[in-house]
Amino acid sequence: MVDTLPSYLAGEWRTGAGDARVVRDAVTGAPVTEVAAADVDFADVLAYARDTGGNALRAMTFTERSASLKAAAAALSERKDELYELSAKAGSTRADAKVDVDGGFGTALVYAGLGRKGLPDGTVIVDDPEPTAYGKHGLFLGQHILTSRLGVAVQINAFNFPVWGMLEKLAPAVLAGVPTLAKAATPTAYVAEHAVRIIVESGALPDGALQFVAGPVNGLLDLLDGQDSVGFTGSASTAAGLRSHPSVVGRSVRFTAEADSLNASVLGPDAAPGTPEFDLYVDQVVTEMTTKAGQKCTAIRRAFVPSAHLDAVQDAVAARLADVVVGAPGADGVTMGALVGTDQRDDVRAKITELAADARIVAGDPTTVDVVGADPEIGAFLAPILLRGDETSQAAHYVEAFGPVSTLLPYDGSAADVIAEVARGQGSLAASVVSGDADFARATVLGIAAHHGRVLVVDRDSAPESTGHGIPMPQLVHGGPGRAGGGEEEGGLRAVHHHMQRTAVQAGPDLLRSLG
Amino acid sequence: MVDTLPSYLAGEWRTGAGDARVVRDAVTGAPVTEVAAADVDFADVLAYARDTGGNALRAMTFTERSASLKAAAAALSERKDELYELSAKAGSTRADAKVDVDGGFGTALVYAGLGRKGLPDGTVIVDDPEPTAYGKHGLFLGQHILTSRLGVAVQINAFNFPVWGMLEKLAPAVLAGVPTLAKAATPTAYVAEHAVRIIVESGALPDGALQFVAGPVNGLLDLLDGQDSVGFTGSASTAAGLRSHPSVVGRSVRFTAEADSLNASVLGPDAAPGTPEFDLYVDQVVTEMTTKAGQKCTAIRRAFVPSAHLDAVQDAVAARLADVVVGAPGADGVTMGALVGTDQRDDVRAKITELAADARIVAGDPTTVDVVGADPEIGAFLAPILLRGDETSQAAHYVEAFGPVSTLLPYDGSAADVIAEVARGQGSLAASVVSGDADFARATVLGIAAHHGRVLVVDRDSAPESTGHGIPMPQLVHGGPGRAGGGEEEGGLRAVHHHMQRTAVQAGPDLLRSLG
Repeated sequence: MVDTLPSYLAGEWRTGAGDARVVRDAVTGAPVTEVAAADVDFADVLAYARDTGGNALRAMTFTERSASLKAAAAALSERKDELYELSAKAGSTRADAKVDVDGGFGTALVYAGLGRKGLPDGTVIVDDPEPTAYGKHGLFLGQHILTSRLGVAVQINAFNFPVWGMLEKLAPAVLAGVPTLAKAATPTAYVAEHAVRIIVESGALPDGALQFVAGPVNGLLDLLDGQDSVGFTGSASTAAGLRSHPSVVGRSVRFTAEADSLNASVLGPDAAPGTPEFDLYVDQVVTEMTTKAGQKCTAIRRAFVPSAHLDAVQDAVAARLADVVVGAPGADGVTMGALVGTDQRDDVRAKITELAADARIVAGDPTTVDVVGADPEIGAFLAPILLRGDETSQAAHYVEAFGPVSTLLPYDGSAADVIAEVARGQGSLAASVVSGDADFARATVLGIAAHHGRVLVVDRDSAPESTGHGIPMPQLVHGGPGRAGGGEEEGGLRAVHHHMQRTAVQAGPDLLRSLG
Repeated sequence: MVDTLPSYLAGEWRTGAGDARVVRDAVTGAPVTEVAAADVDFADVLAYARDTGGNALRAMTFTERSASLKAAAAALSERKDELYELSAKAGSTRADAKVDVDGGFGTALVYAGLGRKGLPDGTVIVDDPEPTAYGKHGLFLGQHILTSRLGVAVQINAFNFPVWGMLEKLAPAVLAGVPTLAKAATPTAYVAEHAVRIIVESGALPDGALQFVAGPVNGLLDLLDGQDSVGFTGSASTAAGLRSHPSVVGRSVRFTAEADSLNASVLGPDAAPGTPEFDLYVDQVVTEMTTKAGQKCTAIRRAFVPSAHLDAVQDAVAARLADVVVGAPGADGVTMGALVGTDQRDDVRAKITELAADARIVAGDPTTVDVVGADPEIGAFLAPILLRGDETSQAAHYVEAFGPVSTLLPYDGSAADVIAEVARGQGSLAASVVSGDADFARATVLGIAAHHGRVLVVDRDSAPESTGHGIPMPQLVHGGPGRAGGGEEEGGLRAVHHHMQRTAVQAGPDLLRSLG
C-alpha cells in the first residue's frame, strides 16, 4: 500500500479521492505512489489563484518577483539530491536528472536575472522605445504598455521533465505577476510534487502564486475566461482537444501548445568521415537517442545524411550505440536508464513497428535488451533503436517514437534537397545542421527556419561551446509551428510578455510618462 | 438583373456560380450586385498563393515590398472617388467613406513607411539587439531571426470597413512576404471588389500576392496547414466556429480574431458640466454613435458617468442627437447615413429590445426615424438610440447592438468602482477616459488595461491632437482580450512579425552575422 500523492491547492496539501492510478518504479516495478483526482472544487482553486495569488504577485514589483524566483530556485538547488533520488525511480540516470532538475532551477535563475536586469522596479513594462506623436505639438501620443493579466496560468506539463517543464512555465508567469496552477503528468507527478513541496517549504513565493494538482482536472477548463491562459506540453491529440474546448474557443483563453515534433539533424556534404564535423554529428545523434532514453521532445528523430556518407554514419552510430549500457540508474557503468514506465515502452515499441513499415532497423532490437542492475522483464527498458529509411519513407516524417529511436534518411547533398525533406516534418521544435560549409549551413538554416522554433549550427569551431541540439535555452524560443503545436515558450522576456496584456495607450505626454 | 460579383483568383477574375445572394442598396433598396460561391477549387487558389504569390513576395526585399505597397496605396488614393461613390450605396456618408477608404490607403502608406524605415533591405529580420553568448570565448551564440512563413494569410473581413479592414490586414502580410487571400463580407463585397480591382489594375503587387473571394469559402479551411494563418473580423460566434475547425486546431494554423466588443468610455469625476472635458465627452459619445451609423467595432457602447453628472450627460447627448440628420448620403444636411442593409437594421432593433430589458431608452425611437432624401420604409435607416441603465443593468455588458446605439451607465465617481464596472464587458477593443484629473486617469488606465487593446485619455490639453476613441491607428495594437477575440492586429511592425516565423538560431558568430 502506498500513499496517495497530494495536491497543493488553496494553501494546503490535499489528498486525492476516488479511483486512484498506481504509479510504479520504472526500474523495479514497485509501486511508488497513487494518483487520484483532488477532492476540491476548481472554482475555489481559481478564485484562490486570482485573488490571493494574483493580488500578492501584482503588488510586488518585477524586482521583488525576481527575488522570489531566485529564492525558489535556490531552495531547489539546495535540495537537488532529493530530486535526483526520486528521478531515478522514473528511470533517469544522474545525468538525465541533472538536465531536468538543474535545468529547472537554472532556468528559474536565468529568469530571475532577466527580471532583475531587464525589467523596471515597478509593475508596468513600457513596450516601445519611443511614443508615437499624432500631432505637430506633441500634445497627444501613443505608446504600448504591458500589464499583468488578471487570470490564472494553467500549466499542463509533460512527464519527461517534471521539474524543468514546470519551472520553465512557472518562472515567466511569476515575473509577469500571474498566479500558476501547475498540473503534473501522472507518471512523474511525484517528482513534480516534491519540487513544489521544496518551493512551498522555502516560503519563496507568496501564497496562491503556485498551486499544484497531481491528478485529473475534470471541469477546470469550463471555468476559464479571457484573462486566463493554458500552456500545454504533450501530445498533439491532447493539444487539439484542449485547444477546441468551448471555453478556450469561446472566451479567447490564451492557449499555447508544445506538441509532437520530428526534429531533424542535417549532416553537411562537406562533413565526410574523418572530419571533426562527422564525429560531432555521430556524437550528437547518439547523445540525443540516449539522454533521458530519448524521451525528449527535442530529440533527433530524423537524421539527414548525404547519400554518399550514409553507410559511414550508420556504421559509426551503430558502433557507438553498441557501447551504450542500459540499466538501473546508478548501477555500475550504466549510461542509459529506463523509459518512464512499461506503458511508455510498449507505446514506443508500437511506434517502432510503424516506422519499420518503410524503413529498416539497422541497430538494436526492440524486443530484447541487456540490462545492468535490474530485471529487463520488469523494468521499462528498451535498447536504442536506429532505423534507416530512403527517399520513399513516409512514417519517419510523422510517427514520433518517444524513446531511444532515430531514423537515418538520405539526401542528395544539396541544401535545396534537404530543405524539402526537412519540411516533410510539417513543423518542429528544433533542428541542427552540422557542417563546416558556411554557404551550405546558411542556405539550410534560412530554408528550414520557417518550420522551426530553434535551429542550431555546429562545426569544429563552435562545438566547444555548443549547448547541444536537444537543450532549450531560457533566452531562446522553445516551440515550433505546425505539428509542434504553434506555441512559443521561453525566448527570454518574450515569455513574460505572454502572460501580460499589451495595451496601446493614447494620452498627453505627462500622463503617458506617469504610467511606466 | 444585376451582374454576379467576380472574385479574383489564380490570376483572373472569375464569376461565381450556383445560388446567388442579392445585395441591395442600403438607401434605395435597388439590387446592386449578386454574390455567389466562386467556381473554383480552393486547392488551386492556395497553390497559386503559396507558389506564384509567395515565391514572388519572398524574392523581394522589405524595401521592395514597401514600394509595392506604397504603389497600391497610391492607386487607391487616385481613384478614391469611385470608392466613395460605391460606399454611398452601402449607406456611408462621404465622411464615413473617408474613414474606410482614406483610412485604408493611409494605413497601407504607414506600413510602407514602417517597412522602408524600420526594416532592412533584405528578407530576414534580426529580432534581438544582441546575440546571447553561451561560452567564455564567444564561439557559439544565440539570436532570433524572423523569416516569412511559407503559407497563405486567409483574411476574413467584416462588412463595415470593406477597404480599411482589407488593407490593414493585407499591408502587414505583403511586408512580411506572405500572400493574401482576402474574403469580403457579402453586404459590402462590391466595395472591396472595386478596391481589389484598382490594386490589380495598378500592377503594384506581384501576381498571387493578393487574391480575393466575394462569396462563401466552403472547404477552404480543410486545406490549411501550419504555415497558413487565418485573420478574422466579425462576430464572436463565427470566430468560435473558425477557431475550433479541425484544421486550425489540429495543424496549428495561426489564428487571430477581432470580435464583439462592448467598448467603454469613462467620464472623470472632475468633468462636471461646464468643463471642457464634459463637452469633449458628449462630443465623443455622439461622434461614436453616428459615424458609420455606429457600425464600428470600436464604437462606445457603454458610457460610464459619475452618478452626479448622469442627468446632465443624458440631456446634453440627447440634445446633440436631436440635431443629427439621418438620410441618404449626400442629401442636403445629412449627417448620418443608413445601416448597411435592412437585415442589419432589424438585428440592431432586436438587440435594442434586449438592452431595453434592463435599461430604458432616453433618446430616439427604434421604430421610427425622420429621413432626408430617401424612403424610411425602404432604406436601412435607424435613429440614434441612447439608453440609460443603472448598477443592476446586465445586458449592456454583453449585448452588442451594432448600430447607432449606446447606453449611459452610472458609477460612484471613484476609479475603483469604474474599473470593476468596465471589467464586466469581459474584454474590449478600445476604451477611453475623459478627465483632467491625472490621478484618476492614471489609476483608471492601469486598472482597465488588462481588459483592453487600446485605451485613450483625453483632456482639454490633449484634445486638439486626439485621434478619437473609435479610430485604430496603424502604429497601435488593434484587438482586445476575451470577448474581443484575443487577437492583435496593427501595432506597427508587430503585425508584420505575426506573419513571420521567429526562429532561435544558435551558431558561431560569422554564420549568425551572415543571416541578417
